[in-house]
Amino acid sequence: MAAAERPTRSDYAAWDEATLRWADVDVYGHVNNARYFELIDTAVNVFLARESGVDIRRLPAIGVVAEVGCRYFREVEYPGSVKLGIRVERLGNSSIIYRVGIFPAADDERPADEAAAEGRFVHVYVDNTDPARPSVPIPAQIRGAVQQLVTR
Amino acid sequence: MAAAERPTRSDYAAWDEATLRWADVDVYGHVNNARYFELIDTAVNVFLARESGVDIRRLPAIGVVAEVGCRYFREVEYPGSVKLGIRVERLGNSSIIYRVGIFPAADDERPADEAAAEGRFVHVYVDNTDPARPSVPIPAQIRGAVQQLVTR
Amino acid sequence: MAAAERPTRSDYAAWDEATLRWADVDVYGHVNNARYFELIDTAVNVFLARESGVDIRRLPAIGVVAEVGCRYFREVEYPGSVKLGIRVERLGNSSIIYRVGIFPAADDERPADEAAAEGRFVHVYVDNTDPARPSVPIPAQIRGAVQQLVTR
Amino acid sequence: MAAAERPTRSDYAAWDEATLRWADVDVYGHVNNARYFELIDTAVNVFLARESGVDIRRLPAIGVVAEVGCRYFREVEYPGSVKLGIRVERLGNSSIIYRVGIFPAADDERPADEAAAEGRFVHVYVDNTDPARPSVPIPAQIRGAVQQLVTR
Repeated sequence: MAAAERPTRSDYAAWDEATLRWADVDVYGHVNNARYFELIDTAVNVFLARESGVDIRRLPAIGVVAEVGCRYFREVEYPGSVKLGIRVERLGNSSIIYRVGIFPAADDERPADEAAAEGRFVHVYVDNTDPARPSVPIPAQIRGAVQQLVTR
Repeated sequence: MAAAERPTRSDYAAWDEATLRWADVDVYGHVNNARYFELIDTAVNVFLARESGVDIRRLPAIGVVAEVGCRYFREVEYPGSVKLGIRVERLGNSSIIYRVGIFPAADDERPADEAAAEGRFVHVYVDNTDPARPSVPIPAQIRGAVQQLVTR
Repeated sequence: MAAAERPTRSDYAAWDEATLRWADVDVYGHVNNARYFELIDTAVNVFLARESGVDIRRLPAIGVVAEVGCRYFREVEYPGSVKLGIRVERLGNSSIIYRVGIFPAADDERPADEAAAEGRFVHVYVDNTDPARPSVPIPAQIRGAVQQLVTR
Repeated sequence: MAAAERPTRSDYAAWDEATLRWADVDVYGHVNNARYFELIDTAVNVFLARESGVDIRRLPAIGVVAEVGCRYFREVEYPGSVKLGIRVERLGNSSIIYRVGIFPAADDERPADEAAAEGRFVHVYVDNTDPARPSVPIPAQIRGAVQQLVTR
């Protein structure tokens, strides 16, 4: 992975924080790769819960995860907490691609300059009232909330 | 469970905080019972890491969990964070019994008056350099750290 | 813990099996204590799903966990799978106390003679259609299913 | 995602099986996206543990996850188990790219024809005895084991 690809603090539009857990750590003392995805989808869902003004779990259209990935640049240290930067890479008609940067906290409590990892998270909205679950336009409350995360 | 048994904020000697995760929540919208134990053992291990002044994972004597339990009084709400109160119920020769109260955060950021749940966590120290893992006295650094959590 | 307390294979009335995961293992190479509770509540819920003949998640009365605990006698080995023995300690009017024994698989694929751990799991049935969630009698389909687990 | 991209049973070189857990399921009744990665890295690590003939956790060179991702085609059903197909997309000098297909079990206990999800898992071998963790050649035992997974 080229160093140039490693995201920095200024790449993100909104921030959250999460605490790490003893159970996150594997036999090598590293946070297990699967656990990063718990942080990534929480960053997205907490943002939507806070900014949309609705209980997103009760909307007829729900976001299902079509694809997700994470690149790991450097380990994060347990015990401690991490800063989660969030931005939208692409806001489509029925899908949203988020980027979530995972940063150690710097001494001044701001995120460190460079991300320790970055997740890419693809939500597709589907009609949860129809068992065939066809894709549908992104609900207006969600679209309004994520607009501010589009960084270019 | 009699109301009298439900622990309150003043029962605990030290505090920590933890953020909840989307993946903590089950199909009923409740934090899954197993996930509380991730908060409970993190509260104990973070306290020991911070107060003992040593990397407890590198000590020859390690604390293994002999028994653990949790009583659930009221749900905690995702998204959000919880306050974790900790105290020591019994400090033995080779074992320590902790109590960890899980509290929602009140409006003023203090823990609520009454615990939403309480965990009971029993650590027994064993010699990690001996495959038979005999129990051993609690290391001095650990004993020194937990002394302040003995509440009676 | 006295050796006499350690449960044996003949103590259980029904069996299930679960595979362990890399992420279950902590920095000491042990299955993390919280992860046992994922096995314990799966054993109860899978039994109920299979034997009740209904989707228990859709019943108006749902089982909420009031209390749960686990005693650990010996480690289970990752990688591998475990056998889960289940029995009912007490079948009340609105609550059920389960015991779930966690056994390594013996060479002949039967569970080993002695449990590596035992969980105690207390379900209380509540009316999920009422926000106050009052306790209610155990649904007939559930009671019918668990009757066979009452051992004595 | 084009239908053509969806992997099928014949794409994989080795198989494993994993049981699902109640705690895997989120508020929508779906297996949480992060939990697939627990299945994916277990498939890789169990294969290596079984086929390499060594305790891979004790080797001086360890595989760290540089990148991982998953595409979700269809939900898997809890309760139940899944079949995990594994193959190697690229066997490099110090890195291995695995593909892990997650399949529901068909009626005849074989995996279904089409994958419900596919993970892509990138291991880079590093010298675990050097704090700088430089990348190193894949250990011979690991290379020997994964050779059979190279599918083209």
